[in-house]
Amino acid sequence: MAVSTDRLVVIGGDAAGLSAAAQARRLRPAEDLEIVVLEQGPEISYSACGIPYWIGGQVPDRDALLARTPAQFEADDITVHTHVRAEEIDLSAGEVRASDGRRFGYDDLMVATGGRPFRPRVPGLDAEGVFGVHRLADGADIRAAIAAGARRAVVLGGGYIGLEMAEVLQARGLSVTVVLADPLPMAQLDRDMAERVCKAMGDIGIDVQPEQPVREIETGADGVVRAVRTDAGSYDADLVVLGLGMGPETELAREAGLQIGVTGGIDVAHTQRSRSHPEVFAAGDCAQTFHRITGEAAHVALGTHANKQGRVAGSVIGRRPARFAGVLGTAATKVGDLEIARTGLCTTQAEEAGFDHRSETIEATTRAGYYPGAEAIAVKLITERGSGLLIGAQLVGGPGSAKRIDVLATAIWAGMTAEELAGSDLSYAPPFSPTYDPVAVAARVSSRIETG
Amino acid sequence: MAVSTDRLVVIGGDAAGLSAAAQARRLRPAEDLEIVVLEQGPEISYSACGIPYWIGGQVPDRDALLARTPAQFEADDITVHTHVRAEEIDLSAGEVRASDGRRFGYDDLMVATGGRPFRPRVPGLDAEGVFGVHRLADGADIRAAIAAGARRAVVLGGGYIGLEMAEVLQARGLSVTVVLADPLPMAQLDRDMAERVCKAMGDIGIDVQPEQPVREIETGADGVVRAVRTDAGSYDADLVVLGLGMGPETELAREAGLQIGVTGGIDVAHTQRSRSHPEVFAAGDCAQTFHRITGEAAHVALGTHANKQGRVAGSVIGRRPARFAGVLGTAATKVGDLEIARTGLCTTQAEEAGFDHRSETIEATTRAGYYPGAEAIAVKLITERGSGLLIGAQLVGGPGSAKRIDVLATAIWAGMTAEELAGSDLSYAPPFSPTYDPVAVAARVSSRIETG
Repeated sequence: MAVSTDRLVVIGGDAAGLSAAAQARRLRPAEDLEIVVLEQGPEISYSACGIPYWIGGQVPDRDALLARTPAQFEADDITVHTHVRAEEIDLSAGEVRASDGRRFGYDDLMVATGGRPFRPRVPGLDAEGVFGVHRLADGADIRAAIAAGARRAVVLGGGYIGLEMAEVLQARGLSVTVVLADPLPMAQLDRDMAERVCKAMGDIGIDVQPEQPVREIETGADGVVRAVRTDAGSYDADLVVLGLGMGPETELAREAGLQIGVTGGIDVAHTQRSRSHPEVFAAGDCAQTFHRITGEAAHVALGTHANKQGRVAGSVIGRRPARFAGVLGTAATKVGDLEIARTGLCTTQAEEAGFDHRSETIEATTRAGYYPGAEAIAVKLITERGSGLLIGAQLVGGPGSAKRIDVLATAIWAGMTAEELAGSDLSYAPPFSPTYDPVAVAARVSSRIETG
Repeated sequence: MAVSTDRLVVIGGDAAGLSAAAQARRLRPAEDLEIVVLEQGPEISYSACGIPYWIGGQVPDRDALLARTPAQFEADDITVHTHVRAEEIDLSAGEVRASDGRRFGYDDLMVATGGRPFRPRVPGLDAEGVFGVHRLADGADIRAAIAAGARRAVVLGGGYIGLEMAEVLQARGLSVTVVLADPLPMAQLDRDMAERVCKAMGDIGIDVQPEQPVREIETGADGVVRAVRTDAGSYDADLVVLGLGMGPETELAREAGLQIGVTGGIDVAHTQRSRSHPEVFAAGDCAQTFHRITGEAAHVALGTHANKQGRVAGSVIGRRPARFAGVLGTAATKVGDLEIARTGLCTTQAEEAGFDHRSETIEATTRAGYYPGAEAIAVKLITERGSGLLIGAQLVGGPGSAKRIDVLATAIWAGMTAEELAGSDLSYAPPFSPTYDPVAVAARVSSRIETG
């Protein structure tokens, strides 16, 4: 290493870490910045969001989930060490101790340790047959369990991963029970919208058991999972899937003494710099971020943010000013033919944030009513009373519904009122929407109520 | 009629006229405002945009294209006279002379005479077998021609109607030739994007004959169309479809002395009031409007604008302030599986409007690359150099592409830069998009180039 060369060490070889590495490299050549990535697992750059669909068989080939290989990074003079775990960060010495015994000194450190699936503290959780949906190995294990004859699955949790896993397991022919601690799936939705999701799950034959915190994973004499027990009953299971969401993985950061935020994620400024140690950056599922509307701290484990935050960190390391602009909590998923999406604040969040708000829900069709494939869609908008500003949106409907959330996310991002959105120029053709797109109908109804 | 009751007369019983009538009625009860609608045709409130798909058989039932019936309006105390043509507007007397001999005095007049298909001035255009796609009767005539054995169709023009008619006639088993005066179809797109459309048309077997203004419609001894002749050749045709676009139908307004704008449409303020006669309103295809970005006069014949402008007029007549907010020229269509959409300024329009602009085109996929049904999509963004403001967007791609234009239309509407859009929180899930939505990729590339 030449005397004048800085070194960036990246801990974690997925979305956030690799985006940072790639962006830093774009801005600073190898003779100016050495880049080393440490990844504890066997692969880098894999799509965790695709794992359910690999299990379901929609994605036949595991390798399709790998976006890029270490060799592709090497070609850009980015050194990637797989199977190397960062064991310790020594902030005062400015070095990382790795599982292979090496110590990597750094000028800039990027912490991208990702997320950690929530695990209920109940007996039996470590039994054979209980799976997360986090790493590719989890997907392989679940596929193997199905191949070995698993017939009954219990999914714990009704968030995005829970819903997607319920769908794909059912598509693979298993009988599926979803056990919820909450009264409804999709806690990110308002009750009325979540009820639509719950009904659709029932309609396609998924057994939903609400308001039943899991008490125990029952196992057989062989130590293999046999059932999931709640206060209301016991649900037979050959396999159990954890779909309870994802928290920040910050063990390494905590032990090093990096400041942790109120959400449990690493506390970073909008530049993705650690607020306690400015030579350290963090991004992605391990980092705290902030909500675009409320300005409050937030934690949202999603690949899109990981990519964007990583890119911001890489830009700053590359000496080009950059700031992350916040999250709205936009998300989309599907269960069967039902598409579900949300953005901004739901009613509960709007209340907590102190907004005097109102909401309107409309029902429409995804295409012109007379055009084949027109399906029902419900759109709910939450607006600030008085100003009419859009602050949240949720939608549930047939094929073609989900991506409409992007229009609402953009309108909220830009600070538009419902009335402005209602007057805007959205596209129309019978195969794609009614004359007034459902989004525009919802905006119009919201603005009409606002104007009296 | 009580002494204190005003009367609104509406000329034209489709989107603009009926939206105005319905909105005025919402705001003023029948004892305050009498509303009379005169419609020259047999039906009101029909979807002209749906006619191609009725011809194609996607919409089996003609009546599905009728949104509302006169009886539904009568229930709201709106009197609808079908088969009654407004023959003359007497602006000084404040009355309309109708084809049934009656004279309707008005306090407010709404002119919603709609559009008129462009017709080339060539011999034979009035021959049997030459059809517009404007009224339901046109659709019935084309369906009858197909039922009677028409095998070869020539479509004149490659705009939205031309493309849609080419697609549906081919789907009905006819061999289809599209004859263009221009070098490419879809003049609303830049050349590079229109080339993609042209190629897709060829790929599904539509014969495109560019740069050939039609010279004559050749007819047989029976007076029925036989071929379309251009300078380059003669194309056999059992039926000929006019797909050359739509101008404003203003004959009645011109004769009355209403001011006509530079686009040929009735000159109205943002309230949809005639600039020459404030007791007269006009909206929809017969009226001139203005472009949201340039502020210049524009004419865009589209049902969405007709609805919104009609609603504005109805609000103003109903004594609630309202303004139309302009058009971006957002539009979407499809040919085969290829979806096509645009919004804002294309390169030529940006040049004409005096924008120092640049453009970037990216290629991506509609879903995560590994997810079934992922199809190619190309997104082109046009930005103002320096400010980075989004001023135009075009996209062409597989199923799921077209409606993404709404995100770009909303961003342009709100005055966002490419960088702001790149940083915004769009949804992601493998069945719906890659981690970075194609729209975000395009915005990122545009903003990166802007920032150097």
